[in-house]
Order: sequence, then structure tokens, then C-alpha cells
Amino acid sequence: MTAAAAPTPDSRQQHPGAPGYTGRKPGHLARLNKIEGQIRGISRMVADDRYCIDVLTQITAASRALQEVALGLLDDHVRGCVTRAARADSARAEEKFVELNETLRRVLRL
Amino acid sequence: MTAAAAPTPDSRQQHPGAPGYTGRKPGHLARLNKIEGQIRGISRMVADDRYCIDVLTQITAASRALQEVALGLLDDHVRGCVTRAARADSARAEEKFVELNETLRRVLRL
Amino acid sequence: MTAAAAPTPDSRQQHPGAPGYTGRKPGHLARLNKIEGQIRGISRMVADDRYCIDVLTQITAASRALQEVALGLLDDHVRGCVTRAARADSARAEEKFVELNETLRRVLRL
Amino acid sequence: MTAAAAPTPDSRQQHPGAPGYTGRKPGHLARLNKIEGQIRGISRMVADDRYCIDVLTQITAASRALQEVALGLLDDHVRGCVTRAARADSARAEEKFVELNETLRRVLRL
Repeated sequence: MTAAAAPTPDSRQQHPGAPGYTGRKPGHLARLNKIEGQIRGISRMVADDRYCIDVLTQITAASRALQEVALGLLDDHVRGCVTRAARADSARAEEKFVELNETLRRVLRL
Repeated sequence: MTAAAAPTPDSRQQHPGAPGYTGRKPGHLARLNKIEGQIRGISRMVADDRYCIDVLTQITAASRALQEVALGLLDDHVRGCVTRAARADSARAEEKFVELNETLRRVLRL
Repeated sequence: MTAAAAPTPDSRQQHPGAPGYTGRKPGHLARLNKIEGQIRGISRMVADDRYCIDVLTQITAASRALQEVALGLLDDHVRGCVTRAARADSARAEEKFVELNETLRRVLRL
Repeated sequence: MTAAAAPTPDSRQQHPGAPGYTGRKPGHLARLNKIEGQIRGISRMVADDRYCIDVLTQITAASRALQEVALGLLDDHVRGCVTRAARADSARAEEKFVELNETLRRVLRL
């Protein structure tokens, strides 16, 4: 799959297996790239013996940014995969509902 | 407090303001290094249009690993900075209690 | 869809605004009833000057139980309201996607 | 320890094992009482088939209020029990550090 170009809604219909987030890929990648930099910054702070509380503040920020990516992917997933399954047969929908529920359980740390 | 220069383990005895985590630095740095790799792996998964749920599973793992580092730093902080302040004067202790509480509030997302 | 009986799928069709959780109401109510008892128990512990850590352990259990109810309601909501909207027109679906996303943001404390 | 009778601030000095939150008991009890009412309100909403999203909003509020009580108890605990132990011998302090860490792990759902 050459998916570099942002798929239009049309191409999504044609390839029902494509992940629901394809259109928002650049945004997700930019956020993840920023988070990678934040983690590197946190490592540097620890290496430099910076004050624990200041390191914790940066960890909280990175953790929140990571949850924002998760929230975006969940939105993509419901709009894409779950909706497609809900419109198709109910066995496939049931499978997606169970999978989404298990994923939310992990995201919520239950 | 002038503690701007990076304290060595030795300087910790000499400068009681040095961060409480110095002794466990290698462990924290190893974890953060691993998390940085996890984030890079998540970026690759998104770039490769991997299934949203699989990406979310990896995000949950990285997020949990990051919270583990936060937990370790909180432990260091209580053992080091808070304990030192509690043994010193009570104005300094009060300051540390308030700061710890605000930090926990952020970590708990309240 | 033969939806397991319970919430009279018929009444759902007639009242499309009925919440998606109707079939699982007894389970949700039993859990909430138990949580109410847990909160009362925590109050008693505090009134009796029980050890902070023991009180915190019970608060964590009640908090987790409450998140379980939230998870169940989210599952009901996706299976019911979101799926119905996804099968209807796309303006209505869009509305539900945005609402679900805002709700998840609150549940995740972002 | 017979701690059934509510320790006064005076008795706290005399019985160092008394929970650190004694002074803020009324505040904790008022909050817990309010949360109990919130849970009862959520039960009523479910019984009345109120919209899932509205129920979830109330669950999020109750959950946050419960975490606020946890945060208050953690603050009491650090100010009271942990500080007393830190000022006493280091074996007792170590015990408290480990216990606090395990408690934070549960509160953070790790």
C-alpha cells in the first residue's frame, strides 16, 4: 500500500481493511515525533540531575500527549472500523464491539 | 538555592538539595531509553498503516512504562527531598508537602 | 438482529432516543448499589480514624468499580446509540462521533 | 491501640500511630457524603433510562471527587505517618516508603 497520499473517503470505501486513521496520519506522526523529543528531553533532565518535581512535570506532559494520540486513534477507529462493521453484518459488528471494549479497558487501566 | 551545577553522587552528601534519585539514575535512564524506542516503534506502526487497535495496545504499554518512571521518581523524591525537609525545619517541610501534593494532582490528572 | 431478548428491541425501535443500556440496567444498578455501600464503608473508616493507607485501598477499589460502570455504559453506548446513528445519516453519525470523543476525553481526564 | 475513640489533636502527639488525617476528618467526611449522594443520583439516572452520555458525565464527576479524597488522604499521610517515621528510625521509615509506593501504584493503576 502506497498510502503516502492522504486517502480520500472514496479510497477508504475501496479498501475496507485500511486503518481508519489514514487521513489523519500526518497529525498523529507529528504528535508522536514531538513526544519522542519530550522523552529525550526527560532523559537529559535525569542525566543532568534536575529536580525530581521538574522531571515529573515533564513526564506528566508527555503522558498527556500520548493519551491525546490514543484519543485520536480511538476516534479514527470508531469512525472507520467500527462504523464499517456496524453497517455490515452483525457478527462482524459484535467482534468490533468486544475488541473496542477490551481496548478501552486497557486505556482506562482497568 | 544555587544547586544549578549537576551534582555528582558525591556532591549529594555535600549539597543536600541534590535530587533524591541520583542513586537510581541508571535505572531511570534505561527505562526512558526503552520508552523512546517504544514511541519510535509506534510512529513506524502509524506510518505503516497498522491496525488502530494494535497501535493503541502499544501506546498503552508506553504510557504505563512512563507512569512507572513517574512512580520511581516519586519514591525517590519522598525518600530524599521530602524526608530531608521533614527532618529540617517545618517551614521547609510545609513547602515540600504542598509541592508534592500539587505534583500528585497533576500525575493523577485532577 | 435477534438481540438476546431483554430490553425489548421493539420498544427501542419505537423510541429511538431510549438509551442503549436498557438491557443491562439491572447489572449497572447492582454495581452502583454496591459502590454506594463501598462509599458508606469508606466514610465509616474515616469516622473511625482507620489507617490512611487502608482507607486509600478502599477508595481505589470503589474508584475502579466506578470506572467499570463507565466502561459498561460506553460499551452500551457504542452498540446502541453510535451504531444506530452510523446506520442512519452521516450528519447524525458525525454528531455522535464528536460526542463520544468528548466523553472519552473526560473519562481519560485529558 | 484502642483507636475507637476519635483522637483529639492532643492525643495524636500521645499516640503516634493515630492516622495523620484526624484534623481534616470533617472535610473528608463531607466530601464522601456528597459522593454517596452523587452515586445515588447516578443510580436514579440509570433507573430512569437517562442518556448514556449524561450518566457518564456524572460518573466522571463522582470519580474525580473520589480521587480528590484520595489526594487529600495522601497529603495527610505524608504529613503525618511518613514524616513521623522519617524522623524516627530508618527501618520504620523504609517500611513507610515501601507502603506509600505500593499505594501510589494502586492509585495510579499500575
